[in-house]
Amino acid sequence: MRQVLQLLRIPSAIARPTTFNCARRITPHPRTFASTPIAYKFVVPQRKEQPVMAPTATTKTGEPFDKAALESLMRRRLFYTPAFEIYGGVSGLFDYGPPGCALQANIIDLWRKHFVLEEDMLEVDCTMLTPHEVLKTSGHVDKFADWMCKDPKTGEIFRADHLVEEVLESRLKGDKEARGQKVEEKEDPKKKKKKVKDIQAVKLDDAVVQEYEEILAKIDNYDGAELGQLIVKYNIKNPATGGELLPPVSFNLMFQTSIGPSSNMPGYLRPETAQGQFLTFQKLLEFNQQQMPFASASIGKSFRNEISPRAGLLRVREFLMAEIEHFVDPEGGKKHPRFHEVKDVKLELLNRDVQLSGKTEVASTPIGEAVEKGIVDNETLGYFLARIQLFLLKIGADPKKIRFRQHMANEMAHYAADCWDAELHTSSGWIECVGCADRSAYDLTVHMNKTGAPLLVREKRAEPLKVEEWQVDIEKKKFGPKFKKDGKTVEAAVEALSQELREKLSLDLQNTGKITIDVPGVGNGKVELDKELVNIEKRTRVENTREYTPNVIEPSFGIGRILYSIIEHNYWVRPGDEEGARGVLSFPPLVAPTKVLLVPLSTHADFAPLVQRLSLKLRKMGISSRVDDSSASIGKRYSRNDELGTPLGITVDFESVQKGTFTLRDRDSTKQVRASEEEIIAAVKNMCEGEESWAEVSKRLPIFEGQQLE
Amino acid sequence: MRQVLQLLRIPSAIARPTTFNCARRITPHPRTFASTPIAYKFVVPQRKEQPVMAPTATTKTGEPFDKAALESLMRRRLFYTPAFEIYGGVSGLFDYGPPGCALQANIIDLWRKHFVLEEDMLEVDCTMLTPHEVLKTSGHVDKFADWMCKDPKTGEIFRADHLVEEVLESRLKGDKEARGQKVEEKEDPKKKKKKVKDIQAVKLDDAVVQEYEEILAKIDNYDGAELGQLIVKYNIKNPATGGELLPPVSFNLMFQTSIGPSSNMPGYLRPETAQGQFLTFQKLLEFNQQQMPFASASIGKSFRNEISPRAGLLRVREFLMAEIEHFVDPEGGKKHPRFHEVKDVKLELLNRDVQLSGKTEVASTPIGEAVEKGIVDNETLGYFLARIQLFLLKIGADPKKIRFRQHMANEMAHYAADCWDAELHTSSGWIECVGCADRSAYDLTVHMNKTGAPLLVREKRAEPLKVEEWQVDIEKKKFGPKFKKDGKTVEAAVEALSQELREKLSLDLQNTGKITIDVPGVGNGKVELDKELVNIEKRTRVENTREYTPNVIEPSFGIGRILYSIIEHNYWVRPGDEEGARGVLSFPPLVAPTKVLLVPLSTHADFAPLVQRLSLKLRKMGISSRVDDSSASIGKRYSRNDELGTPLGITVDFESVQKGTFTLRDRDSTKQVRASEEEIIAAVKNMCEGEESWAEVSKRLPIFEGQQLE
Repeated sequence: MRQVLQLLRIPSAIARPTTFNCARRITPHPRTFASTPIAYKFVVPQRKEQPVMAPTATTKTGEPFDKAALESLMRRRLFYTPAFEIYGGVSGLFDYGPPGCALQANIIDLWRKHFVLEEDMLEVDCTMLTPHEVLKTSGHVDKFADWMCKDPKTGEIFRADHLVEEVLESRLKGDKEARGQKVEEKEDPKKKKKKVKDIQAVKLDDAVVQEYEEILAKIDNYDGAELGQLIVKYNIKNPATGGELLPPVSFNLMFQTSIGPSSNMPGYLRPETAQGQFLTFQKLLEFNQQQMPFASASIGKSFRNEISPRAGLLRVREFLMAEIEHFVDPEGGKKHPRFHEVKDVKLELLNRDVQLSGKTEVASTPIGEAVEKGIVDNETLGYFLARIQLFLLKIGADPKKIRFRQHMANEMAHYAADCWDAELHTSSGWIECVGCADRSAYDLTVHMNKTGAPLLVREKRAEPLKVEEWQVDIEKKKFGPKFKKDGKTVEAAVEALSQELREKLSLDLQNTGKITIDVPGVGNGKVELDKELVNIEKRTRVENTREYTPNVIEPSFGIGRILYSIIEHNYWVRPGDEEGARGVLSFPPLVAPTKVLLVPLSTHADFAPLVQRLSLKLRKMGISSRVDDSSASIGKRYSRNDELGTPLGITVDFESVQKGTFTLRDRDSTKQVRASEEEIIAAVKNMCEGEESWAEVSKRLPIFEGQQLE
Repeated sequence: MRQVLQLLRIPSAIARPTTFNCARRITPHPRTFASTPIAYKFVVPQRKEQPVMAPTATTKTGEPFDKAALESLMRRRLFYTPAFEIYGGVSGLFDYGPPGCALQANIIDLWRKHFVLEEDMLEVDCTMLTPHEVLKTSGHVDKFADWMCKDPKTGEIFRADHLVEEVLESRLKGDKEARGQKVEEKEDPKKKKKKVKDIQAVKLDDAVVQEYEEILAKIDNYDGAELGQLIVKYNIKNPATGGELLPPVSFNLMFQTSIGPSSNMPGYLRPETAQGQFLTFQKLLEFNQQQMPFASASIGKSFRNEISPRAGLLRVREFLMAEIEHFVDPEGGKKHPRFHEVKDVKLELLNRDVQLSGKTEVASTPIGEAVEKGIVDNETLGYFLARIQLFLLKIGADPKKIRFRQHMANEMAHYAADCWDAELHTSSGWIECVGCADRSAYDLTVHMNKTGAPLLVREKRAEPLKVEEWQVDIEKKKFGPKFKKDGKTVEAAVEALSQELREKLSLDLQNTGKITIDVPGVGNGKVELDKELVNIEKRTRVENTREYTPNVIEPSFGIGRILYSIIEHNYWVRPGDEEGARGVLSFPPLVAPTKVLLVPLSTHADFAPLVQRLSLKLRKMGISSRVDDSSASIGKRYSRNDELGTPLGITVDFESVQKGTFTLRDRDSTKQVRASEEEIIAAVKNMCEGEESWAEVSKRLPIFEGQQLE
């Protein structure tokens, strides 16, 4: 068998933290900071043992997962569809059809209730267009980039790290085959593959195999020059043509544009909603009547100009984010007043130490214990991790497919105190869907330094703070005449003197009646001052106000990734009958795009007014329903409904007309009950609001087995 | 008194249709289409008498409107704020703070219920990034532009039509002053003005005055060359410096960017959400099980790179739109099945004929009558106009400040059947907030022609259609040998023959045994065919399927403009007490950002648990509340609440602790009632759901006059 090389294969890349689509942060490699020793890079072991191949995915019912079947369902039922398809499509851009749009709206609605309303967060809606200067300060202009290689002959462009990864993995596969070992084939054979130059099964030296494996383990850590060296050293070419590639160049992932008619205001589409929230901090604090802590929140689209997006909704160029910036006093251990409410929530934690030891075993730990033991840095961070899990469960995530992975020290931004990703397991492996970072005071600090705006909290101290310090008094009247134009410079130099120096100088002044200080740019750089000009004394200063820059805990949700994962978690196949196996999406009623399908038995004229009445009643209760009065069989209509994830169905038949009773069908069991209109509507309301389950309803209302619907 | 020239003054411009921010269409001037006589431009009189000065605005209570006071309130209460303000701001970009964000979310929620859910519309969420080709086909690349003039010395850029308008209006003002007439000063004197070169009061010739007025009346109709001629002829310069300007050049109003790493896929940020809906038509029709008519809907941001945006939320570069595309069969008069439900709704119509006669008087007309008389083109369009008005009233628009203005023939796109704008009156004059156009089959047709995708409806005919026609049979076997490589060309020429020609040729064939047809490019352009090669006969063809391109009725809402207008319509000032006059925003409870303010009388520890219990109860009922437990006086806290537009307030005092009763305060009257927790909560629920009014509540619950809160 010959090897087929998959270029830029996504799954293994997605499992990596720095490629998080929806909340990618500038996580500069440590060695880009002069203070960090270059050797650091090699000191921290990588998650080498983490399976490169994704674990096998299963459906909700534990059967093997057939991705092609789900994709066909998504398309057939218009959950989402490639954008601009009739124009040939644009990779990485998707449109949501009616069910996808409703599912997204329901997830967002629950998010707003679960986070924003529950905690009185201050929701803001900031613009996507962002001027260059803001993103220069935040670091995105310089660091929000990937490395790309161009084939000068074909014009093809490759993401450099993905290319090296694909080629080396492919060679390792070829080696395994040559050694007669079984090769796991993880790509879906039905998927259309890029035509690539075949690579033969070639046995490699043992030493080469080890080298490749080491490179793959730390593929995220190479910069452009290093990737270029790997490409040369291992003779990596355009896999499709064998053509030489140009050295990697940096490609900024922001979409650039120009604001206004002149070209002097370059701007970008925001890569995250966070910056708008940071810039508004001062006004939000004022709006919150100066009370700390508080959180802002924002729901909106962000953009990322992926070099070569594939993998459906998991790696896209335009995506919906929901972000929280919780501002907290850095002093006092970042306690959270409601932490006790969640302390017993158990999370599957994959912490840094476990990863360092080369393992991926998670430990089910109550968050209270995790914070107490220092596994999670502080209460506020821990509180949000637990709340994130509760949210994911509420919208239908499979509890067995949720884990929290801590960032390795070298994955995190240098300023971050701690960072955990909520990952959901899908057929593409573990996908980071929510990032939750303690970003310290970084963001507010850089914007304050750049603009001078006071992005800080001023707080009256309960007890005035007494500070003993050396103070320098300047005899300003004599300074002017003596130093003339240099007066201000000398004054500034005096005021900049450290406490230690002041103490030392006070002795000089006492002993010699004069001091000498450094004032660069004035005379020979040294200035002499005598007792007539300055006085230095130790005094006690009383501070009534405390000033501090809040730290920020940032839970950041990629809604598209969550939506896709929830779809996979709730997908299963009902064993076939004469019409074959049929897909079912068992969404919880809260998030289901439509709650109730209304089905008249036939197109008989007597049914229409009843259907209309039910529809109106449900609408008034805020329960979304749809009527399917097509001529298809009831079974076929319910089958369509199951694929759309509609949890309940009401059939209108002749007994409805004669006796006023209706059947209510449960999507998951296909069981039915029959009762009066009033009882049926009440049961629907209870189930949609989560007050009652189908099991309960089917116990108290008479089971109906009259129709053969399935 | 010297004249101050306002550059690019907005109000009069906003009142013009082609400048509609949120739903601007390519409305090419008729003369850009060869088939329209050039003289047409001058045949259609302009809305000359329409007041250039906006009518005086009033508050909700009919007092003179103080814009500066409202703007200060908006800022103080963080409804919205200039984006990137700490970086100096970017004109035309605004962030919504918590109350603005909640107001917007409530308007959108009501919009979705009023339109999407009420009529089972298919909501979609399409991408903002749009490739060049799509917008080339739609016409935006070529036509979605304004003309701009640059001052080469200062680098300043002016929108050409605004510049001409401002300068001529300013000269007319100077003339009036020189003639000793009173000049209406409409600009807010508190507003910061651009520093401009003063223009003296100079009397003009009567003929010149008339010329200026004629130009101003048709200022929207000039193209770049004509604007350039006006600038030269009337010696129009940079008003600030007197400097010469370069001739007008076209400036496309779309934000351009590049999709992907190579620069070969130029793209734009969408100028409207409509295109995504048109491109998905085929899939939506399939999703709707081929049933017509149906509507799609979309809510999302769109973008417009304004040359020089001013006027706050009324002219911005990034804005939220809500658009409906209602697809309807062009045959059968575009009836609407629910038209009878709205036929008695009275609209203030300013139709084309009235405008042609130079008037602006509106006629209050039931929509049923307007459609019957042909004032409004068809039922479906009329249905939406009525539904738009009902929506605007529901969210709190002042009925006296709503009108519907029909587009003039030369304002509309050439393909449009009819178009009406819902305009709301504000301190900037009549603002178009919703456009409602019958766009015929234009959009689907151009995209189908470009891509070949079948954006049409195929419908089984109830009765098969019998068509009598002349058919030509070609003896293909003999065609090849005779014409060789020209065979296909000759065949195509035969098939392209018109019915008239076929009838004539059938006689030739009968009489002479041969025919001669034109086949350009083959031989001498004439080809002779005999009976051996072709046969022509009259036959009856039966069509079982009908194919048609649906027409589209498009109601398009600019949410930001609506939001701002609703704020103005609900703003008033409560006469002053010792603390001075205070602003109130009397939003209906349905759209109010927060429904209930919870106010503990003091910081006494006994109050906190009661406040918390109320807060939780309200939250469970989906009613948003906020607690104000600051140390400010109750009066001050309610005053803040009035500025935020919160309709209800509950005070927790010692009687609440002792007897379990609470006072409930009405924002508008400042009256209070006192009752048990249960009764108060029930009253709040009723009022928030629109089931009961304050007048009713205050009749059945005991009035409370104990506290002096105001």
